[in-house]
Amino acid sequence: MLHILFLAALLFFPSSQAADFCVAKLKGAGSPSGYACRNPAIVTVDDFVFSGLGAAGNTTNIISAAVTPGFVQQFPGVNGLGLSTARLDLAPGGVIPIHTHPAASEILFVVYGKITAGFISSSANKVYVKTLKKGDVMIFPQGLLHFQINAGGTTALAIVSFNSPEPGLQITDFALFGNNLPSNLVEKTTFLDDAQVKKLKGVLGGTG
Amino acid sequence: MLHILFLAALLFFPSSQAADFCVAKLKGAGSPSGYACRNPAIVTVDDFVFSGLGAAGNTTNIISAAVTPGFVQQFPGVNGLGLSTARLDLAPGGVIPIHTHPAASEILFVVYGKITAGFISSSANKVYVKTLKKGDVMIFPQGLLHFQINAGGTTALAIVSFNSPEPGLQITDFALFGNNLPSNLVEKTTFLDDAQVKKLKGVLGGTG
Amino acid sequence: MLHILFLAALLFFPSSQAADFCVAKLKGAGSPSGYACRNPAIVTVDDFVFSGLGAAGNTTNIISAAVTPGFVQQFPGVNGLGLSTARLDLAPGGVIPIHTHPAASEILFVVYGKITAGFISSSANKVYVKTLKKGDVMIFPQGLLHFQINAGGTTALAIVSFNSPEPGLQITDFALFGNNLPSNLVEKTTFLDDAQVKKLKGVLGGTG
Amino acid sequence: MLHILFLAALLFFPSSQAADFCVAKLKGAGSPSGYACRNPAIVTVDDFVFSGLGAAGNTTNIISAAVTPGFVQQFPGVNGLGLSTARLDLAPGGVIPIHTHPAASEILFVVYGKITAGFISSSANKVYVKTLKKGDVMIFPQGLLHFQINAGGTTALAIVSFNSPEPGLQITDFALFGNNLPSNLVEKTTFLDDAQVKKLKGVLGGTG
Amino acid sequence: MLHILFLAALLFFPSSQAADFCVAKLKGAGSPSGYACRNPAIVTVDDFVFSGLGAAGNTTNIISAAVTPGFVQQFPGVNGLGLSTARLDLAPGGVIPIHTHPAASEILFVVYGKITAGFISSSANKVYVKTLKKGDVMIFPQGLLHFQINAGGTTALAIVSFNSPEPGLQITDFALFGNNLPSNLVEKTTFLDDAQVKKLKGVLGGTG
Amino acid sequence: MLHILFLAALLFFPSSQAADFCVAKLKGAGSPSGYACRNPAIVTVDDFVFSGLGAAGNTTNIISAAVTPGFVQQFPGVNGLGLSTARLDLAPGGVIPIHTHPAASEILFVVYGKITAGFISSSANKVYVKTLKKGDVMIFPQGLLHFQINAGGTTALAIVSFNSPEPGLQITDFALFGNNLPSNLVEKTTFLDDAQVKKLKGVLGGTG
Repeated sequence: MLHILFLAALLFFPSSQAADFCVAKLKGAGSPSGYACRNPAIVTVDDFVFSGLGAAGNTTNIISAAVTPGFVQQFPGVNGLGLSTARLDLAPGGVIPIHTHPAASEILFVVYGKITAGFISSSANKVYVKTLKKGDVMIFPQGLLHFQINAGGTTALAIVSFNSPEPGLQITDFALFGNNLPSNLVEKTTFLDDAQVKKLKGVLGGTG
Repeated sequence: MLHILFLAALLFFPSSQAADFCVAKLKGAGSPSGYACRNPAIVTVDDFVFSGLGAAGNTTNIISAAVTPGFVQQFPGVNGLGLSTARLDLAPGGVIPIHTHPAASEILFVVYGKITAGFISSSANKVYVKTLKKGDVMIFPQGLLHFQINAGGTTALAIVSFNSPEPGLQITDFALFGNNLPSNLVEKTTFLDDAQVKKLKGVLGGTG
Repeated sequence: MLHILFLAALLFFPSSQAADFCVAKLKGAGSPSGYACRNPAIVTVDDFVFSGLGAAGNTTNIISAAVTPGFVQQFPGVNGLGLSTARLDLAPGGVIPIHTHPAASEILFVVYGKITAGFISSSANKVYVKTLKKGDVMIFPQGLLHFQINAGGTTALAIVSFNSPEPGLQITDFALFGNNLPSNLVEKTTFLDDAQVKKLKGVLGGTG
Repeated sequence: MLHILFLAALLFFPSSQAADFCVAKLKGAGSPSGYACRNPAIVTVDDFVFSGLGAAGNTTNIISAAVTPGFVQQFPGVNGLGLSTARLDLAPGGVIPIHTHPAASEILFVVYGKITAGFISSSANKVYVKTLKKGDVMIFPQGLLHFQINAGGTTALAIVSFNSPEPGLQITDFALFGNNLPSNLVEKTTFLDDAQVKKLKGVLGGTG
Repeated sequence: MLHILFLAALLFFPSSQAADFCVAKLKGAGSPSGYACRNPAIVTVDDFVFSGLGAAGNTTNIISAAVTPGFVQQFPGVNGLGLSTARLDLAPGGVIPIHTHPAASEILFVVYGKITAGFISSSANKVYVKTLKKGDVMIFPQGLLHFQINAGGTTALAIVSFNSPEPGLQITDFALFGNNLPSNLVEKTTFLDDAQVKKLKGVLGGTG
Repeated sequence: MLHILFLAALLFFPSSQAADFCVAKLKGAGSPSGYACRNPAIVTVDDFVFSGLGAAGNTTNIISAAVTPGFVQQFPGVNGLGLSTARLDLAPGGVIPIHTHPAASEILFVVYGKITAGFISSSANKVYVKTLKKGDVMIFPQGLLHFQINAGGTTALAIVSFNSPEPGLQITDFALFGNNLPSNLVEKTTFLDDAQVKKLKGVLGGTG
């Protein structure tokens, strides 16, 4: 009778451990490798499913675009699994401003619409830019400046994935003009004119 | 004049090297970390764009489904960047048979249609299965058995990403019944009946 | 006098820290990189020694075989050190059913007896199978389906090691027939006949 | 006689291999993990020593500063060893413009002088800035925008190290204004005024 | 008919690539991640099986012991798979001198005999030593000094595994006394007496 | 008005998380990847700056040298960032005794003075030694025995960096003679004479 196999095999399955995954406990101190693991006994399939990308983001804003993240903070099931995702909605004229992900490469799939996307290499300072159509995929190497712009007259949707649960997102404009980094430091380190810096600090809420 | 800065900075940009990326030379011996790098001087934006997922795969087959990969072999630009992608087309009744990716976790986005997807944990032998609708995301931890089934009356499309340029794909049925693994070894290691094994070997082209 | 060196060097040895190892505290939440570390001040050599592989496993079961693991749950000293181990006892006729380790490669040494071992590649669906004798070593690449069968008339013993403290173990039969994965999902995703699925669910304790 | 030990041990030392290091062959295709290894038989201690940081860089330029790298391209001995270095010379008024290293964290030691250094986090867009004196060390997390400015009336020198042989260096101004990224794309993705963009493109040699 | 599935699936299996493994081409330049891959089309099961540990090493030497390695140079199939192995034969009185593996942790299984094994931590300079009996397992953390001594009156055999295909082996005595490191440098950096250094240099073949 | 962008972007910046860094909470259990993270809301720039290397170490000791570490225990800001540092002060005649860092490679910059530095490879037991002058850089591969000696008549200073926040430090003399490792085990595993071992145990405080 095979049943004995079943009993023997139970020895492999300790009750309080789950090497397969580590759904994040978002409260409490994390570690360099990610958040602490929720008790696997209370994990359900819903921890591995995320519905937050189902609806378009609100693009009635100055960039006519929206980024809806499915990073570990929104989707705790990705903790420790080396992946996360986001949706990019771009209304006509929409722009995802130039930015980097300090901790991940990105792969983008155009669900509908046309998107001009590009990145700039660090080693040769070369520009790689192309207008993508529905169904096209583009890869953006880790840490490099890149952007996406709606290139058509209709709304565009892209789904992106990252090879980290916490890719990070540093929008250059926010880093320079959206905090209390003193204007004189911005100017010295970017060569931008004072008037330009103050204008953008004004609209982005920066001080100093 | 700022121009002097420009000249000085050129010292950072060696002509024959590109730390940012390593587009694969598919011919020739690879290394454990991936394929050798194409000369960055001849790399263009087209190396970072893949159009192979733009058209639906042919689902007029026994599984009423198709997987179209954008792994490093199809999309050399992902080499060394820790990501790849694929599209899953499922006609009504379509099934992606149970399988694993030995070298990657997977994240799936439902573009349209309904898909019942599931995986089985190794540590507790627990089933995590759910019917996903348009816009849902699901994560499948590395190396675990999983499957996708069309759960609606219409064609479904999912875009998946992997945290490896070469995630691998091992369809359990093909591994067991689609090669020359002798029937008696299949039977001893799976407890399947001889008739069952031979039936599936027949249709999947297996011998032995 | 050299003694002063001794005093100076004490500055390097902080009292509450041990970068060298991280013996697992099995209770409490782990992290994606493993369990929390036990206080190194109370760690002894016994934490680095495991005697659980000293006795043969009980092979009076349907597979005439036993796997005795020395994973992090049994052997907390391996936490964070990238290794674990197990012993395989195979009585005459014994079989380790086809399975994968989602998170590790495996290296096997035959202590005594004869073992037919094999794995199936994912990239070419090719079978690599050989009968091993005492003293032979075989490597099984990460995540691939593999099996071991006693190939002689006497008991065989193999010692295996994994390059992870938590390699995972997914026995295909248990994943398919030993839980509540509904029979119709098993059948759709494996092409196995209903009678075959129900027969194996019966013996392996599966429901649905 | 111990001599026999000597002979036996020679078996451990294969003649054509060196696991310890992999001095880069800079010519020829690299791999995602770095350059191919030079034949260890011809490697000498000089491959592990780099004298290129011994002299101050030329700071008679618009930024009154110089970065002298000891990355794998200049110092092939670091290939595969997870480290590289650079020296920063800042004349009075000198500035290392805001930039990122896409592939490494950085640790800086002030050899002499005063340096105001800062970085901007991505997760909270927070500024971390401080004036460092001789002997101070500062760490800059991977991929984040950061800068260094001479904060005293005398020349300053800092030695920096990176946890990658190829950390990359992306100076924001060069990425935006020092290549052929069209002005309208710069403007759309940064909100900078057209006049500002064209002014900086002029001085940095950008086109488009 | 299922046969169509078979044809469709062939699309997944490119002919010239094998993500699953990378059997080493030992000739030619390696990379930081290991040796170049042999063409997978000519790889056979014999590349994954190593018989070099089947016979006891010759222990008629000064240490009454022998280490027989199954590293990547002897067993090319482990390249890129994160594991290697070795056998330790210890005649009565046999000793594996104190040594480190710079690139791997080690796990040891006693096949027969008694072995006193120990390691010294770096963080607290603490000694962890124990006499192991048949069937015991011990783990040695990466890079730490450790040793094995026959603790019984009969020959002992241990099988060890490492979490690297190239763990490295640095026997302290050979490093200090078995090469051309000048005696005065040995003495200055170890505080050993000149007579002691010269005595051991003599027997171990060192010069200088 | 751009202000709406500012509000929208706030959605990216969760209040209680900081993927960019993980300043160590030194109290409490760590994980294999390092210490738990301090709450990022209370982290300040001072957590990323370390002043402990500003003053020369006390070299009035038997080695006429001092190592002042900036590892994670002294400099919690490096936790999870893959880097740490130390300063080496060598008075005339000063010596850093032969040692290893089990978990990191090291890169050394000579700030002033002359230093003879060397390491011994494990694969070929080859000595790589050179006298370095001010401004020279040397790389020491992970886990290998190495040393530094003042080679001039004046004090020398070197700044070193490691590619780990916890590189570890195992001084061979301390490991052999500065603890309770029994003399007979030291002698058996090193071939040193009993008198030599006892002499050094005496001065280094060893027992047994």
